[in-house]
Amino acid sequence: MDGLTYTEIDGVTLTPLRIIGGDKGQVLHGLKASENQFAGFGEAYFSTVLEDDVKGWKRHKVMISNLIVPSGEIRFVLFDDRPSSNTQGCFQEVLLSKNNYQRLTIPPGIWMAFQGVGENESMLLNISSIEHDPTECENLPIENNTIDYKF
Amino acid sequence: MDGLTYTEIDGVTLTPLRIIGGDKGQVLHGLKASENQFAGFGEAYFSTVLEDDVKGWKRHKVMISNLIVPSGEIRFVLFDDRPSSNTQGCFQEVLLSKNNYQRLTIPPGIWMAFQGVGENESMLLNISSIEHDPTECENLPIENNTIDYKF
Repeated sequence: MDGLTYTEIDGVTLTPLRIIGGDKGQVLHGLKASENQFAGFGEAYFSTVLEDDVKGWKRHKVMISNLIVPSGEIRFVLFDDRPSSNTQGCFQEVLLSKNNYQRLTIPPGIWMAFQGVGENESMLLNISSIEHDPTECENLPIENNTIDYKF
Repeated sequence: MDGLTYTEIDGVTLTPLRIIGGDKGQVLHGLKASENQFAGFGEAYFSTVLEDDVKGWKRHKVMISNLIVPSGEIRFVLFDDRPSSNTQGCFQEVLLSKNNYQRLTIPPGIWMAFQGVGENESMLLNISSIEHDPTECENLPIENNTIDYKF
């Protein structure tokens, strides 16, 4: 027990996605424009993370992120610091891989960090609602005085 | 020499993409809405292919495909059978991986097949201009009487 409160953070959604198997390989769904979670296309990019390493913390002011892990395994940690949120002060942990193949949709205002769990390199795809813009995101080091989480 | 004509097929583009390295992993660019090759967002999905296996042939009537290989190595073979094309009857081969990290944009009307070259499983991301629609694509078996290519 780490004394933190874990819950499903308001506005964060997990959407199970299909993996269609075949003799020669698989097809893994990502995001369709007709889905509820689609909030416009700004950019698609990959981020890889090595085993045990942590990238974060980052918080967006505008971007809605759609995160998918097609390779390896990644632990996402979210922290809700929004003053008007019902889940302010709460954490959410999500472990994504092909074994738990879901799309994690994160609204603006949520702190997020992620850790490589799979062997060697794990990879996420972010299909984001806007293009990368350094003026709309904030960063904190992994160890900081705002987010009381120990990786 | 296989007697086939290879060229850059009319309307097919290759766009070099950035890989930004870091201590904990990389960021790999995919597609931005502001880029010339962006023709609307319909769907993003992954397709994996095992070493030496071939998926194809497939031809779309409407879809514009944006293909990126973030993991493994894939050989794409394109065949232009468009009657009005300057490159009708020509083939194009493209080998994509992190070592040749480019986005392959394919307009409608081009036959395409792809083969896993990397060890074990290789993976492509397609950011396509429309959602999957079985009525707008045609398939041919790898061995057929229309496309004289030997994998």
